[in-house]
Amino acid sequence: MTTQEILKKAKAAAPSLANLTTDRKNEAIEAMAASLEAAEEAVLAANRLDMEAARGHISDVMLDRLMLTGGRVRAMADGMRDVAKLPDPVWRTLESVTRPDGLRIDKVSVPLGVVAIIYESRPNVTSDAAVLAFKSGNVCVLRSGKEAWRSAAAVTAALREGLKKAGLCEDYVNLIEDTARTSANELMTATGYVDLLIPRGGAGLIRACVENATVPCLETGTGICHVYVDEFADLEKAVRIIVNAKTSRPSVCNAEEVCLVHAAVAERFLPMLKKALVDDREKPVELRLDERAIRVIEGTPAGERDFDTEFLDYILAVKVVDSVEEAVAHIAAHSTHHSEAIVTEDPGNQKKFLRAVDSAAVYVNASTRFTDGGEFGLGCEMGISTQKLHARGPVGLRELTTYKYVVVGNGHIR
Amino acid sequence: MTTQEILKKAKAAAPSLANLTTDRKNEAIEAMAASLEAAEEAVLAANRLDMEAARGHISDVMLDRLMLTGGRVRAMADGMRDVAKLPDPVWRTLESVTRPDGLRIDKVSVPLGVVAIIYESRPNVTSDAAVLAFKSGNVCVLRSGKEAWRSAAAVTAALREGLKKAGLCEDYVNLIEDTARTSANELMTATGYVDLLIPRGGAGLIRACVENATVPCLETGTGICHVYVDEFADLEKAVRIIVNAKTSRPSVCNAEEVCLVHAAVAERFLPMLKKALVDDREKPVELRLDERAIRVIEGTPAGERDFDTEFLDYILAVKVVDSVEEAVAHIAAHSTHHSEAIVTEDPGNQKKFLRAVDSAAVYVNASTRFTDGGEFGLGCEMGISTQKLHARGPVGLRELTTYKYVVVGNGHIR
Repeated sequence: MTTQEILKKAKAAAPSLANLTTDRKNEAIEAMAASLEAAEEAVLAANRLDMEAARGHISDVMLDRLMLTGGRVRAMADGMRDVAKLPDPVWRTLESVTRPDGLRIDKVSVPLGVVAIIYESRPNVTSDAAVLAFKSGNVCVLRSGKEAWRSAAAVTAALREGLKKAGLCEDYVNLIEDTARTSANELMTATGYVDLLIPRGGAGLIRACVENATVPCLETGTGICHVYVDEFADLEKAVRIIVNAKTSRPSVCNAEEVCLVHAAVAERFLPMLKKALVDDREKPVELRLDERAIRVIEGTPAGERDFDTEFLDYILAVKVVDSVEEAVAHIAAHSTHHSEAIVTEDPGNQKKFLRAVDSAAVYVNASTRFTDGGEFGLGCEMGISTQKLHARGPVGLRELTTYKYVVVGNGHIR
Repeated sequence: MTTQEILKKAKAAAPSLANLTTDRKNEAIEAMAASLEAAEEAVLAANRLDMEAARGHISDVMLDRLMLTGGRVRAMADGMRDVAKLPDPVWRTLESVTRPDGLRIDKVSVPLGVVAIIYESRPNVTSDAAVLAFKSGNVCVLRSGKEAWRSAAAVTAALREGLKKAGLCEDYVNLIEDTARTSANELMTATGYVDLLIPRGGAGLIRACVENATVPCLETGTGICHVYVDEFADLEKAVRIIVNAKTSRPSVCNAEEVCLVHAAVAERFLPMLKKALVDDREKPVELRLDERAIRVIEGTPAGERDFDTEFLDYILAVKVVDSVEEAVAHIAAHSTHHSEAIVTEDPGNQKKFLRAVDSAAVYVNASTRFTDGGEFGLGCEMGISTQKLHARGPVGLRELTTYKYVVVGNGHIR
């Protein structure tokens, strides 16, 4: 089927999905999860073909992301069941007012309609994105990366089979069959068909979507996250937080990329940092130091781009600053507005930082790694929004809805 | 000053405005209102120059929109004072959770930053937009239509004088000095400087902004609003609602443009409609009738575009349909997703319509004219959003904010 044909079917299916009851949706999610488990062999066979075709063309890290196992398929199905347990975000009354003349105005949450997701090589995104869209009442149009297409197609076939078994329209979950780059562009410009486009993947994919999309697009993901160690920091706490923020999972967007250190504590703190991140570690972190930091500890001199790079690796850029204001200004100029932390025991500086830093999540004395739908209590998430309109931070079920005003009168005129 | 220079100053001013207390903001609004009243003569003199220059070049309706009087200037100042009385939308805790490990996560509302407003010839938009942006903690960059520029400049000068008297930065309120078309384009593409662009005006302006903006843009305004008279309608009620929706103020976006009538009541209802809208009126409404309606009453045969036109005039397109489903389908194909109403006493059809119609406001037995920030209890508004992302319907103070997650720990790591 062409992308246009799929979009037309998706749009036609949207109104009936918007009006399914919570129970019907949850039954259908269980049917999709069971169908995915039942299709384990077919999914693994498709994945083996993807793996064979990709080997030698993509890195080992990418190959690992692409690979499915029986355990991973079952985890995907269980992930879907977890979403069934979350509250239904649709048809919630957000506000309600009855005017003096008796006119009743309810602001109620409703699905967006058709949500398109362009992603890369993780096959689990197929089921994750589909179930989040479905539970929030949205028809999804998925566009997998070419390397993972066979796997995505096998997963999608299983989900559609589940919908059919539940007596529902299969077109609630759709996969674009054309994996040429043009199909991504078709989605980005499908005005009137796509109510929201969400890119999930690396900085290049996200930039391409934000720049080329004429449909509404949610900017997600890239995180140049900062931890600022204030002059009034508990330095042991600072080390613990930075070790966690940098090394617990360097490949994710909420990992720390830049450490700012107040000059008053730099001589005491930087050797502690080096010990924890370099000397004591089997897999040491490469420190890229500005000219003031390099006078205190050994490391790589920071290059021009090191304070503007999402390393996603065991690399940390380090800079010495003279005040909380300078830290805030550096963050304003260099961050991607994802997550930033201050480590300090001083309430005034805590407040100053929390107020002035304009990012989706701002932290006091905690690791940036908490920016996550699960950790924030939203359940699963479609990504982390780094834009200000509509949704900021984790994009969960509720962020996949909009609202409308439902006004009931009895011949009311103005 | 060039547009670029103004944008730089606006961006630099945003953080301090975001952190003003409610009291400081309200004092400053009073100072701005008083300053505007004190400047009445200067404002009226500037407006006379605008009027002289425009006469003969724009319609009488447009001239009336452009004209200021002492009363209108005082109404602008009082409108500002009304906004001072509204609740502060900034730094509200929207949600709050303390995790089992003691990590506290607050979702708090914060200003967007810099809001740009491109508008046309109503000088009162200058003070309306400025005070809404200011109260919601946003720096505004205003770009008035060329015909009203002298008036807008005089109003802006008064507001900036008020800010100065209140001891605040004048750059919280800015007017683009260059009235060439290129300055509007500069605003639309000022990535990194403009956090939200709001066009206020006719369909052409809005389309130009939506199509050309690379900064986030809120689509507002155009309303092809429908009233559907169901087979189970109270026909007297229907007439009353339609007379109000069509004729109480035809030039506004929440006025009705299309009437859909169920075939089962068309023969009874259409003559009633013609009597009320045509025969009984000094200023009759022109009815543009589809081929089934024209068999029942006299009127103009509807042309090809009449069901896709925002008339903003004493014109109503009328079409006969065979079911509530056909009405819903017609609305889905032709409306601008602003406001639509059903007139019916049947609860099933009420529910069907409310659920299935995908517009910012959906009505049962009430006039579409209620879609308005004041009527909905939001206070003043910056416009009516017809898009689904971020804000739908009236854009009041709260819709001019975003949020961030404020996370406070004590050395918490993940």
